[in-house]
Amino acid sequence: MDTADLGLPVDVPSTALFTDRYELTMLQAALRSGTADRRVVFEVFTRRLPEGRRYGVVGGTGRVLDAVENFRFDTGMLDFLAHHRIVDAPTLAWLADYRFSGDIWGYPEGEVYFPGSPVMRVEGSFAEAVLLETVILSILNHDSAVAAAASRMSVAAGDRPLIEMGARRTHELAAVAASRAAYVGGFASTSDLAAGFRYNIPTVGTSAHAFTLLHDTERDAFTAQVDSLGSATTLLVDTFDVAEAVRSAVEVAGTELGAVRIDSGDLLLLAHRVRQQLDDLGAKRTKIVVTSDLDEYAIASLAAAPVDAYGVGTQLVTGSGHPTCSMVYKLVARANSDAPGAPLLPVAKKSMGAKSSVGGRKWAARRLDADGVAEAEVIGGGEVPAELAGRELLVELVRGGEIVGREPLDAARDRHRVARAGLPLSATQLSRGEPVIPTEYPRN
Amino acid sequence: MDTADLGLPVDVPSTALFTDRYELTMLQAALRSGTADRRVVFEVFTRRLPEGRRYGVVGGTGRVLDAVENFRFDTGMLDFLAHHRIVDAPTLAWLADYRFSGDIWGYPEGEVYFPGSPVMRVEGSFAEAVLLETVILSILNHDSAVAAAASRMSVAAGDRPLIEMGARRTHELAAVAASRAAYVGGFASTSDLAAGFRYNIPTVGTSAHAFTLLHDTERDAFTAQVDSLGSATTLLVDTFDVAEAVRSAVEVAGTELGAVRIDSGDLLLLAHRVRQQLDDLGAKRTKIVVTSDLDEYAIASLAAAPVDAYGVGTQLVTGSGHPTCSMVYKLVARANSDAPGAPLLPVAKKSMGAKSSVGGRKWAARRLDADGVAEAEVIGGGEVPAELAGRELLVELVRGGEIVGREPLDAARDRHRVARAGLPLSATQLSRGEPVIPTEYPRN
Repeated sequence: MDTADLGLPVDVPSTALFTDRYELTMLQAALRSGTADRRVVFEVFTRRLPEGRRYGVVGGTGRVLDAVENFRFDTGMLDFLAHHRIVDAPTLAWLADYRFSGDIWGYPEGEVYFPGSPVMRVEGSFAEAVLLETVILSILNHDSAVAAAASRMSVAAGDRPLIEMGARRTHELAAVAASRAAYVGGFASTSDLAAGFRYNIPTVGTSAHAFTLLHDTERDAFTAQVDSLGSATTLLVDTFDVAEAVRSAVEVAGTELGAVRIDSGDLLLLAHRVRQQLDDLGAKRTKIVVTSDLDEYAIASLAAAPVDAYGVGTQLVTGSGHPTCSMVYKLVARANSDAPGAPLLPVAKKSMGAKSSVGGRKWAARRLDADGVAEAEVIGGGEVPAELAGRELLVELVRGGEIVGREPLDAARDRHRVARAGLPLSATQLSRGEPVIPTEYPRN
Repeated sequence: MDTADLGLPVDVPSTALFTDRYELTMLQAALRSGTADRRVVFEVFTRRLPEGRRYGVVGGTGRVLDAVENFRFDTGMLDFLAHHRIVDAPTLAWLADYRFSGDIWGYPEGEVYFPGSPVMRVEGSFAEAVLLETVILSILNHDSAVAAAASRMSVAAGDRPLIEMGARRTHELAAVAASRAAYVGGFASTSDLAAGFRYNIPTVGTSAHAFTLLHDTERDAFTAQVDSLGSATTLLVDTFDVAEAVRSAVEVAGTELGAVRIDSGDLLLLAHRVRQQLDDLGAKRTKIVVTSDLDEYAIASLAAAPVDAYGVGTQLVTGSGHPTCSMVYKLVARANSDAPGAPLLPVAKKSMGAKSSVGGRKWAARRLDADGVAEAEVIGGGEVPAELAGRELLVELVRGGEIVGREPLDAARDRHRVARAGLPLSATQLSRGEPVIPTEYPRN
């Protein structure tokens, strides 16, 4: 397979093995029993938001489209499956020709979601649709968790830019996806070069304590950095004494110094002191960047401080306490035979008291109040009521196996801002609460 | 670059862009100031364990070696850096020839660690060593977090096997690394085919509710599965009524049915009921596998239940509440010139009251009491005291740029079991506590 145009090193040529073994053994059993070609509908949804969260954010839709497109079993993979007797010969032959040929609809990336929202719907034969479960959930569960955290941080930061700096705190490729999801959720830039390379997200950087410690004096380090990177650079001022460092920084770089970064200590206090000192030195336009285990609460607590930008790492890439969503991929309808046009029957797990779900293919729409503010997530089967026309949430992403839902990443970022702004004002409170609008299931 | 032998799709041909932008701009400034060739020592350590944890587990060392070996800037990457003016032309030329030529020592994979333990030490020129910071931390922070959670679950599970099933709950490639780390921590197998493909971890699978719902009756689904996969398969019995499902399962598969899986409800109660029912039906050797948001506490609570294996997903891949470690990569020593043989000076960040560290290249050893049980993690500079001879923890991983520390994954898994068994008994309590042995810094 030609991998040249797949954006390596941060993409992969095939996604087909990002799959739980049981998807393949279920396929084998269904091929044998004659049910593999039954037309089915799978839906992705969550039963609940993470505790206390007011809304979810769909992240990763674009990556799902890449994953579906690149879901192919090459010879090496088929050899592996054969060698370990994971599936039988007829199933291997079927997998060798695998290309998803069905339809996918979903909430567009950046849209908000609520408990029960059918954020993605996959239709096709059971055989072709069941195989996509694991990789679709991996992507949506990870990316949506980061996008939701990013959105809350973005609310807390207001107009001040947020820099994603979490690469070192998570798996090296999860980091790239996290940068992407953070951008959708409202971050402005990333420190991660792979994210810049793969997704064209603006990259930024400052300097580390190691650079200062490498030199014989802090002033030597500042001089080296300014000589090479210009006075618009950002100097790190907390390796030794902050006040001395700020004085050196302005002496070395001049009053046109771009920014200073504070990475430890009482950021609220230090930001005020450093701002005063910079102003006194005439460096009135020199900005202050703060970093150091920030989360949305710490960002909010700095709202009144003279801070110009926030760098966020750990808490962003770990979803600020909720590193994964609880999205599931559930069979909600299936044909009762493999005859073309066989009607779809709603199906659902119905064991006592746990993990039950609502059967049937569903639409979703967001109902607005008289002021145009969202007041309910409405989810139903059958026809969409006339009063919800134009408010439907699912869009077409894949038609007959062809990707039709690709869009620039900025479209998702813009959509998120608009969607969030359309929620009731209490959506953006940081304190714990219930989903900001209820999910309704009208009777048909 | 030939990617054929790199184990795609779950490896990547170059790791060089899994790097924060500032590593490259610091390199540029150091090349310009003449400090780039100073010999340096970076150490990876944590200041604390996650709250309440008694020990940490080193995970990812083997992946770090792969990452170092594959850290090369190819033409596409250099073009990207040039196009975005991330570094200047002399730096680009330097990067084009980059190969790490220094030395790396570290705690071997699977070893336990404590606050301050130098789990990895990278020595070389500043230029070559600083570039590795981000990717080394990404790998160790992620993989060690999962390995630590796996270790606790493994303690809770005792002799019963643990199956890693978390692929759908985390980034698709983080999932592969998580399977690997879980195996090191004591898990027996994984559902993730990519982890089997890449790391030869045994893969297993059962069946999903979708498979039952696809068929006209539960019995049809069981028949299909047994016909295709044999009676040793695992049937999922909680789609509708568990007791009816167990009865059908044994009728269809016979008393040689391999296992049943319960994925919802009160697992303790259901396990007892299902065991009784299986025994009454003569299926005395049919095993019971339980899954459903298990963590180490839920596993422990099932210790007295007739459960034969645990499948664990979300809580494993998210580190059971601690999805990342807080490992940092700090400059601890550097030469004062780039002359060959220039002596190394200890260096450390010394700002007031926060994030300070201990300068100087360090050794680490685990001191045992008279019974051979670990009693302290001893960390020092200079010579290792005679009484700690043979108890040193760091091993050679890379010598002059050549990887010398590769080992089979089972070696790390075995090492972890031995290392954990050498800790005081209270190490494996699940309740919150302090690190089970103190870290000591003897005066030299």
